[in-house]
Amino acid sequence: MNIDSLKNEWEELNKEYAELESCNRRYIELLEQLHSHQQICFNEIKHQRYRMNQITASLRQSKGPIPAEDREKVDELQKMTLKRKAQLHEIEQSLPAKSGRYLQIILGDVNVSILNRNDKVRYKDDYEKFKLILNVIGLIMAFFNLIFNYRALELAFIFLLVWYYCTLTIRESILKVNGSRIKGWWRAHHFISTVAAGVLLVWPQGEHWQIFRMQFMYFNVYISIVQYLQFGYQKGLLYRLKALGERHNMDITIEGFHSWMWRGLSFLLPFLFIGYGFQAYNAWTLYKLANSPEAPWHVSVMAGLFLLLFVGNMATTLWVVPEKIRE
Amino acid sequence: MNIDSLKNEWEELNKEYAELESCNRRYIELLEQLHSHQQICFNEIKHQRYRMNQITASLRQSKGPIPAEDREKVDELQKMTLKRKAQLHEIEQSLPAKSGRYLQIILGDVNVSILNRNDKVRYKDDYEKFKLILNVIGLIMAFFNLIFNYRALELAFIFLLVWYYCTLTIRESILKVNGSRIKGWWRAHHFISTVAAGVLLVWPQGEHWQIFRMQFMYFNVYISIVQYLQFGYQKGLLYRLKALGERHNMDITIEGFHSWMWRGLSFLLPFLFIGYGFQAYNAWTLYKLANSPEAPWHVSVMAGLFLLLFVGNMATTLWVVPEKIRE
Ligand SMILES: CC(C)(COP(=O)(O)OP(=O)(O)OC[C@H]1O[C@@H](n2cnc3c(N)ncnc32)[C@H](O)[C@@H]1OP(=O)(O)O)[C@@H](O)C(=O)NCCC(=O)NCCS
Ligand SMILES: CC(C)(COP(=O)(O)OP(=O)(O)OC[C@H]1O[C@@H](n2cnc3c(N)ncnc32)[C@H](O)[C@@H]1OP(=O)(O)O)[C@@H](O)C(=O)NCCC(=O)NCCS
Repeated sequence: MNIDSLKNEWEELNKEYAELESCNRRYIELLEQLHSHQQICFNEIKHQRYRMNQITASLRQSKGPIPAEDREKVDELQKMTLKRKAQLHEIEQSLPAKSGRYLQIILGDVNVSILNRNDKVRYKDDYEKFKLILNVIGLIMAFFNLIFNYRALELAFIFLLVWYYCTLTIRESILKVNGSRIKGWWRAHHFISTVAAGVLLVWPQGEHWQIFRMQFMYFNVYISIVQYLQFGYQKGLLYRLKALGERHNMDITIEGFHSWMWRGLSFLLPFLFIGYGFQAYNAWTLYKLANSPEAPWHVSVMAGLFLLLFVGNMATTLWVVPEKIRE
Repeated sequence: MNIDSLKNEWEELNKEYAELESCNRRYIELLEQLHSHQQICFNEIKHQRYRMNQITASLRQSKGPIPAEDREKVDELQKMTLKRKAQLHEIEQSLPAKSGRYLQIILGDVNVSILNRNDKVRYKDDYEKFKLILNVIGLIMAFFNLIFNYRALELAFIFLLVWYYCTLTIRESILKVNGSRIKGWWRAHHFISTVAAGVLLVWPQGEHWQIFRMQFMYFNVYISIVQYLQFGYQKGLLYRLKALGERHNMDITIEGFHSWMWRGLSFLLPFLFIGYGFQAYNAWTLYKLANSPEAPWHVSVMAGLFLLLFVGNMATTLWVVPEKIRE
């Protein structure tokens, strides 16, 4: 070892450190500038919305028929307002958004915005993959539960369900913060599923559970398979949307996208409706069971939850699909 | 309504919108610059660490006694290395950090770094407040469970425990990402508590549970009270650390801080040790119960978990306190 050569090396490293320090200082400056620009944007967006609402209100308050020469101007103003709203929404996508109450409680006041478009797509991708993996695990466990009737195996499966649905609600809330247009019902669906799995957890072993047990496991096997089909559909959508987003990519047209989506949807929908039918059937089985003597309260609660899931899923899907046609 | 005056207003709004657009463009530029500076800082920090390790390795490899004239230089180099490590750590606090595996699974790949020092303190504050509120709710529920013996009330309480401990592990992982030096055991403690609450959830009602029930509720009442004392201590620490961090504030000296901490700790410690004693006692009660005929597996698992908590808490506290003296 030569201490002097080491000292020289250290001196060199020192110079590099000075660069790092100045880079870090610049970084902190940039961060402050970024925050102040964010603030300005937020305020201006708010101001724009406020003034536009005033203008719209004035337009609406006008009494009597609009003179023909004004008609055109009014229409134009309304069209421009709509366009501006879309523009503001677009700008908001680049700014961090506040978390909803649920995330605030679970995570505390931490920012979960993803500002970069590519990172947003990657996050969504990751979410779909997470669902897929957990569904494969769930499928395997449900399958084993069909073959064996061990309480430990059963409990492990139900714990998995509680954890899975709970995690989904968290991830979906993060997606929501980052501008996903996921319908409120699907998030509610996963809350309700968490509650349902919790009820199953405390449902005492006994005659009633044993009657429902096999049906429940078959139901889970079926749902896992449907989830797998859904994964294929969402993955395809995501891939095509990404390709559409990249301007240079000419492989995909809007028409091609729509026709693909329609084929995907019409393949998927029958499976979904059978799934909803299965949920209704579960509710019915449990309802009959609840009327038998000495049924624990879990039976009727589960019947109600399955009914709720059936109604909500049915209504949302029947409402979403025609909406997609109109697009 | 005067359509022309509205049009004028719109024109004005248009000008402001142009400003907003340019502000947003600048913002996006800043964001890109920020990312590139981040990347440079990361790379340089890695480089500094790598080179320092090399230098340290060379120093260590030197065989034979170090000549007297080099001794001083070697010492100086070692001192500088230590100082540099602290400096690098300081710089890292201003950069976003990657989440650990647990957060990656629950939240997906989203950034939960808090870059601003004040926001970090606020987040910690918020975490302490969250614990306090949930402890008050827990205390009330444990208290009602002492008075009434309703299964529904009991289940609500245990569900709350599962949710509370699970949420704690998430929030503590976020604290960890943001540079908290919270010991691994306290996080493990809350994982184990989640598991324990899960086991309680599926412990069938019956003779054994009824024997342990009251003791468990008393234990929870006690823990809630201890948590309240802990809150006072942590709150005081946080307040004083913040005051120390603000250079201009002369109310608090390092010595004053240490003496306050010692008074706080010596007040708190007896209560903690009684709590650990209570955990050991729970383990012992359950162990005896497990030996009685027809005890379900939950009894012995809970005995093991309480024993684990007792040993871990005892060991960690006994290890932390002398370490704090040495500081
Ligand atoms: C009907 C369906 C196929 C339509 O999907 P779609 O074409 O993506 O619908 P939308 O255009 O309304 O989607 C809007 C957003 O919500 C998301 N989304 C739609 N359904 C979702 C679901 N069930 N879970 C999570 N996210 C969903 C979409 O990915 C999209 O996200 P984005 O804004 O980030 O791109 C879809 O809602 C679906 O699969 N529903 C069935 C779910 C179900 O019933 N599960 C239980 C099985 S029995
Ligand atoms: C012993 C004790 C009072 C020391 O607290 P302290 O002075 O803050 O200890 P440290 O200096 O090691 O703290 C390091 C960090 O860990 C945090 N921390 C310490 N104990 C913690 C705990 N039990 N839970 C969560 N965070 C904790 C501190 O807030 C600090 O955070 P920071 O780096 O963000 O500032 C504390 O660890 C404690 O209260 N332990 C008992 C917990 C317990 O046994 N609970 C069960 C009751 S029976």
